[in-house]
Amino acid sequence: MVKVAVRSERAQETRVAILDAAERLFAEHGVGEVSNRQISEAAGQANNFAVGYHFGSKTELVRAIVHRYATETEQRRLRMLAALPDSADLREWISCLVRPVTDHLDGLGVPSWRARCLAQANTVPALRRIVIEESVATPSMRRTLEGMSRLLPGLPEEVHRERGDMSRLLVLHTLAERERALHEGGTTARTSWEATAVGLIDALGGLWFAPVTT
Amino acid sequence: MVKVAVRSERAQETRVAILDAAERLFAEHGVGEVSNRQISEAAGQANNFAVGYHFGSKTELVRAIVHRYATETEQRRLRMLAALPDSADLREWISCLVRPVTDHLDGLGVPSWRARCLAQANTVPALRRIVIEESVATPSMRRTLEGMSRLLPGLPEEVHRERGDMSRLLVLHTLAERERALHEGGTTARTSWEATAVGLIDALGGLWFAPVTT
Repeated sequence: MVKVAVRSERAQETRVAILDAAERLFAEHGVGEVSNRQISEAAGQANNFAVGYHFGSKTELVRAIVHRYATETEQRRLRMLAALPDSADLREWISCLVRPVTDHLDGLGVPSWRARCLAQANTVPALRRIVIEESVATPSMRRTLEGMSRLLPGLPEEVHRERGDMSRLLVLHTLAERERALHEGGTTARTSWEATAVGLIDALGGLWFAPVTT
Repeated sequence: MVKVAVRSERAQETRVAILDAAERLFAEHGVGEVSNRQISEAAGQANNFAVGYHFGSKTELVRAIVHRYATETEQRRLRMLAALPDSADLREWISCLVRPVTDHLDGLGVPSWRARCLAQANTVPALRRIVIEESVATPSMRRTLEGMSRLLPGLPEEVHRERGDMSRLLVLHTLAERERALHEGGTTARTSWEATAVGLIDALGGLWFAPVTT
């Protein structure tokens, strides 16, 4: 029994090392540009097939990377939703979209690769579907998006979908660009993740409420 | 003299072949992931140093790619500005930001790689500066941004800069994602580049006019 537990603990450590290495390599080079072999090496695995052994395909590896933090983000968002008044305005719902992510990035410290890794995965259509499945199609996100929809009753479905896509791109790439600037010592428009969240919530509020040209 | 003209014409054809190949490879794999040797090969050059010979460094190659269409976009925007009334509202100025780019992409047909190539270059800080120098710091862009600023007198400088960054990211990645979907047969929120421009102009109008939380 002790032997099995040790082996299982070691497997868990290997999985974490692979996820960390993959996240960094994907962020820096793009998901399609990094081989499972390179990830195994960067994770300090003597066995070049470690990624395949622990995760299966690269698609499943990306799913594991997204899923890894989705649970934490989900918990943060559910706590925010529980405290939301019935009278919540659009910006408060948008805050439930943005803050669980910026708070999480804030907690990772510098450097982190998370936002850039997700931005990279988003450029591969098959992986984008996985990112959306794992991070957008969750109970907390559904409740948030429903709350927003109730406040936007007249928005045509086509525009609703378009602004959803725009919100995803704006949040993803604003956070990825900030993460890169913090890592590489570049300048940032805002001095903290908290202020970045405020700026995004303001901007998204305007974007969603903008009049629609027909 | 004839010999020199032929040689110069051939050099010009080689340059175009290299720019086309580089744009496609950068769009698909990222600027940092593609070697000058791979570009030379994809451009059908027997000489692996063709990129270096014709363009110098990769930075200069990226500058040439951006500059190549910047002139056309500049002309489109200057024509729009010349027709703009003194009473132009914010959405008309934003239209001068967006339409020269969407009209250009519309003219390229399917597949194109331009939007994705610029989105990739934008993720490399040193190259982002070049993209901005070549495409944003032009006379037409300066006039457009000044026109917008006059209609946003109370906007704090920090927020002005932040929303400028957000506008760049939103336009760039919305167009890149649409270009990729058209190429790969995916779904798009809008049925045409024209409708995409309208959606972006609406959304950006809302983003820029959004109240600022202080």
